[in-house]
Amino acid sequence: MNACGLIVEYNPFHNGHVHHIQEAKKTSGADCMIAVMSGDFLQRGEPAIIDKFHRVPAALQSGIDIVLELPYPYAVQSSDLFAKGSVQTLHEVGVSSICFGSESGDISHFITSYEIFKEKEAIYRKTLKTHLAKGISFPEASKYAYRQLGLSTPEMDLAKPNNILGFSYIKAILEKKLPIQPLTIQRTNSGYHQQTITGSIASATSIRKQLFKERTITEQVLKTMPDETIKQLKDYMNTAETWHMWEKYFQIIHYRVMTMTTQELAEVHGVDEGLEYRIKKTAKKAISFNDWVGRVKTKRYTWTRIQRIFVHILTNTKKSDMKMVESASTVPYVRLLGMTKTGQAYLNNRKKNMDVPLVSSLGRNNSPMLQLEEKAANAYYSILSPRNRQQLFMQELQAPIIFND
Amino acid sequence: MNACGLIVEYNPFHNGHVHHIQEAKKTSGADCMIAVMSGDFLQRGEPAIIDKFHRVPAALQSGIDIVLELPYPYAVQSSDLFAKGSVQTLHEVGVSSICFGSESGDISHFITSYEIFKEKEAIYRKTLKTHLAKGISFPEASKYAYRQLGLSTPEMDLAKPNNILGFSYIKAILEKKLPIQPLTIQRTNSGYHQQTITGSIASATSIRKQLFKERTITEQVLKTMPDETIKQLKDYMNTAETWHMWEKYFQIIHYRVMTMTTQELAEVHGVDEGLEYRIKKTAKKAISFNDWVGRVKTKRYTWTRIQRIFVHILTNTKKSDMKMVESASTVPYVRLLGMTKTGQAYLNNRKKNMDVPLVSSLGRNNSPMLQLEEKAANAYYSILSPRNRQQLFMQELQAPIIFND
Repeated sequence: MNACGLIVEYNPFHNGHVHHIQEAKKTSGADCMIAVMSGDFLQRGEPAIIDKFHRVPAALQSGIDIVLELPYPYAVQSSDLFAKGSVQTLHEVGVSSICFGSESGDISHFITSYEIFKEKEAIYRKTLKTHLAKGISFPEASKYAYRQLGLSTPEMDLAKPNNILGFSYIKAILEKKLPIQPLTIQRTNSGYHQQTITGSIASATSIRKQLFKERTITEQVLKTMPDETIKQLKDYMNTAETWHMWEKYFQIIHYRVMTMTTQELAEVHGVDEGLEYRIKKTAKKAISFNDWVGRVKTKRYTWTRIQRIFVHILTNTKKSDMKMVESASTVPYVRLLGMTKTGQAYLNNRKKNMDVPLVSSLGRNNSPMLQLEEKAANAYYSILSPRNRQQLFMQELQAPIIFND
Repeated sequence: MNACGLIVEYNPFHNGHVHHIQEAKKTSGADCMIAVMSGDFLQRGEPAIIDKFHRVPAALQSGIDIVLELPYPYAVQSSDLFAKGSVQTLHEVGVSSICFGSESGDISHFITSYEIFKEKEAIYRKTLKTHLAKGISFPEASKYAYRQLGLSTPEMDLAKPNNILGFSYIKAILEKKLPIQPLTIQRTNSGYHQQTITGSIASATSIRKQLFKERTITEQVLKTMPDETIKQLKDYMNTAETWHMWEKYFQIIHYRVMTMTTQELAEVHGVDEGLEYRIKKTAKKAISFNDWVGRVKTKRYTWTRIQRIFVHILTNTKKSDMKMVESASTVPYVRLLGMTKTGQAYLNNRKKNMDVPLVSSLGRNNSPMLQLEEKAANAYYSILSPRNRQQLFMQELQAPIIFND
């Protein structure tokens, strides 16, 4: 069997994703579609609206055959590490291609860009360093550096978030010379961060915005998602009595920072360059999570970077914990969250050739990375009532979701 | 001026305390009554019902001239360290006597007991060790050891909590040969842990029990406290929108433990003998704070000891933080919470002869112990809304309360 990989968050799974899966299947000609999905915390440094287990079923009903979890230390990271973990996970289960969405929908632009980048990497690094020294953020400095290399043409603009992620996937594949064919398809809606819903295909951002504003599934939102997502959103609300958003964690993360010394804060992954003092100082005045991030924010630190740091504080992820990722040549395991019968057949065949263990529950494994995963799950559920928290955490110990396709 | 010291918690300040102050004043013949009071967390390992600043005014209206804060690392401790910090604080402000309540009300019993104890200390230690090895708790083992020394007569029973505290005060005074006269007065109500209210003099335990059960100040409770305590309890409820009790901290402390490794938990002060594993394991099933303590409890660990450990986890107090206390010959400062004009005159005169700084706010001082105090205050207020939390914390930065007597 021939597998194609997708790198996703499904927060929540919506019609745009269904479309992406169909297009990717067509483009790749694969028999088995494999998604690697962020767990309870997302790349942008936010809790997922509903937990990972409730984000899987709709994908399995819409053309995905296997859902794997992107481990926490790769998921809540800037694009290079996020891409590295995703691509390596897909490589370990033997995909022949990886298909991602982009502005142009033409893979040759990415390949060419990579070649230019490798050739002029020294110039990129020098320009990046010069701009960072001026006190601007990494994404801004990187944009200038790509421009310097000629990588901001209309066909291939590395200032656009989707293109940056795609470019990181390409780098992760080509730098390790992995036997994976990169594929891209053009995005159907107007943009990554589109704020409003206009039809049956909407951005995840606009859907979440409506869900949180209305605290219920409106008619408008209903049209944008498969029935199974609606069911899972409702089920989660029934069980957990809430959907997840940063503001719900404000009391807990504020408590945590207020009882840490600046020295302890500096041990947290991502807290660099004296940011520990800024976080402590602003904590005294912050009256909400958004207010706090706004007070920490400067030209140098993007909102996303600060949110990621807050996730690491919340989950108690230290610089020392990240060493296992930095020194690793590949992911320590592949975690299976759900599969169809097709996916099961694929994995049964593939399993014996895998170089890393295939893990389905937190139960019996004591890999240090699974311990980080467990802490992340505990932090994610911490805002729930004791009974709800215990019930939902049980999912971490159970067998993967199997969907009869 | 001649000063007498009292060692108190005032949680809350009630008629029994008024009586104690009057009796102590009479017995000591002092012009100035000085109370050293636990701050926001108490010796039994519990948050105080209202913060320290709201527990001071009633005392100043009822015969106390100066209220000092017992630093956190001495307050949430077993009797010997609690007594050491209290007696040293009172010594630094130059009290000539210390007066405490006891069952017998006869100081000679304490002095004699101390002499016997010193003479047979080796036997005490050996018996203690033998019994501890059997897996019983320290208080139980200590009771056996005192009995072995003949220190459990009807006149002087070191199994009773009040007598144990008194005995610890005596030890702290006599071991350092401090020029302080120990005095004791008989307790007026039937016991330390009396559960029900019977008249105008009731135990703090019975008062708190009613306050929490009824969530308001009942007629029965009203009779047991001076008007100023009533006012402060109401004021605090108006400002903070709650009174403090362990259950309100359950979500926060549970979150904290669930995101700590066992190794990090073992670094917390008081977490010894593998208790970190027991705390982590029981956390998975606990559905309330009381349920959790009950699950941790064994013959070896008393409820109080476990509660104290939970306070140290909540405030993030590590074994390394306690080194400053263990190696200190006296307290690093004396913190003034409030005073009358009489108290002010006493301190003005006394101040220049003090060996340690007299501190009134957290503001400009960076003693490591004041940093622990700040963390404790932040942990204490963490259950409140952001605005209330900020408003109440401001008190830590203000000048002491002055009452015009």
